[in-house]
Amino acid sequence: MKLTYSPTSPFARKIRISAIELGLIDRIELVPTKASPGTMNEDYSRKVNPLRKLPALILDDGSTIVDSYVIAEYLDELAGGGKLIPASGARKWRVKTDHSITQGMLDAMLLCRYEQMLRPEQFRWQTWIDDQWDRAWHGFGHFEVGADALSGPLDIVQIGLVCALGYADFRFPDCGWRKAFPKLAAFNDRMMQRESVRISVPPPG
Amino acid sequence: MKLTYSPTSPFARKIRISAIELGLIDRIELVPTKASPGTMNEDYSRKVNPLRKLPALILDDGSTIVDSYVIAEYLDELAGGGKLIPASGARKWRVKTDHSITQGMLDAMLLCRYEQMLRPEQFRWQTWIDDQWDRAWHGFGHFEVGADALSGPLDIVQIGLVCALGYADFRFPDCGWRKAFPKLAAFNDRMMQRESVRISVPPPG
Repeated sequence: MKLTYSPTSPFARKIRISAIELGLIDRIELVPTKASPGTMNEDYSRKVNPLRKLPALILDDGSTIVDSYVIAEYLDELAGGGKLIPASGARKWRVKTDHSITQGMLDAMLLCRYEQMLRPEQFRWQTWIDDQWDRAWHGFGHFEVGADALSGPLDIVQIGLVCALGYADFRFPDCGWRKAFPKLAAFNDRMMQRESVRISVPPPG
Repeated sequence: MKLTYSPTSPFARKIRISAIELGLIDRIELVPTKASPGTMNEDYSRKVNPLRKLPALILDDGSTIVDSYVIAEYLDELAGGGKLIPASGARKWRVKTDHSITQGMLDAMLLCRYEQMLRPEQFRWQTWIDDQWDRAWHGFGHFEVGADALSGPLDIVQIGLVCALGYADFRFPDCGWRKAFPKLAAFNDRMMQRESVRISVPPPG
């Protein structure tokens, strides 16, 4: 299998960590791929992902799996099922919901990043940044309040959340999340003891 | 159960159609809710969805399910499973991938809409609109090429796609998708014969 990958993509990082933890990383070739708003890539749009996003998992039969959550589900099933995503019960829906929240937090932070760095300065709109940041910040708050759920066996929520925290460190190093959310800081420290998490930290900006 | 709902939200529409088709709509109270970037809603952020998005499904025990895909999965399971989302096999991953593409198309179109309508005129950036629109358009192209897959039993891809096409009609009535994608136009006509699809068309802008 091939995974379109960039070391700066938090969604690609989530899949790399998941694949390592599921024991599948040796079966996946990471294919360095650039994807940035404003840069068209007709070949990627037509053959891999019309949304022009990372990561995409290209199976050996040439078919493609999009997006990162579906890829995580696919890998989980390949590893036997019920590993990172509970197969049934109330916990399944809690994990799926909380994972969606980590996805939305990352989407919101990426929109902030694009607004602050990619968009020409004269077109930036502070209301938009404030709005998106408020979503991510409430997401962190949601997990701080429910931090007990982060101490169970490794799951896709913990992986998604550590990628969101890592992305905050990478792109918004002065945002002060550790001070605002001390339980998440302790969670992040615990997660950093895993090799999968440590080796996939984004490179210094 | 309660569903936070707006008649203009394509994601909420997808869940309404799904609930009707699954025979569950009588168990769901649609709760009119406003959610728009730039309008904070501390109560909704804290109690329902930190991402401040629609729809969210509030269960009778007070717990909440987010986002629209997870809600669709939950309702599908409640209806017995394997109804709108195949329970196994290669088709499962094809449906999940194609559904993700419809989600991304809607995300892209919403970003275009926000850029063109919500953002003050002096801060609009045409490159951003072109980029997001290109993603949605390639998504339509993806389904035009693979239109044969749209003629099988009703699934979440068909529902997601008809919501994307409906949103294009609602917010971008001059975009010309019917001319560019004639197979999707025929698909849309077929889908409009369903009462669930017809009664949930967004109100005239």
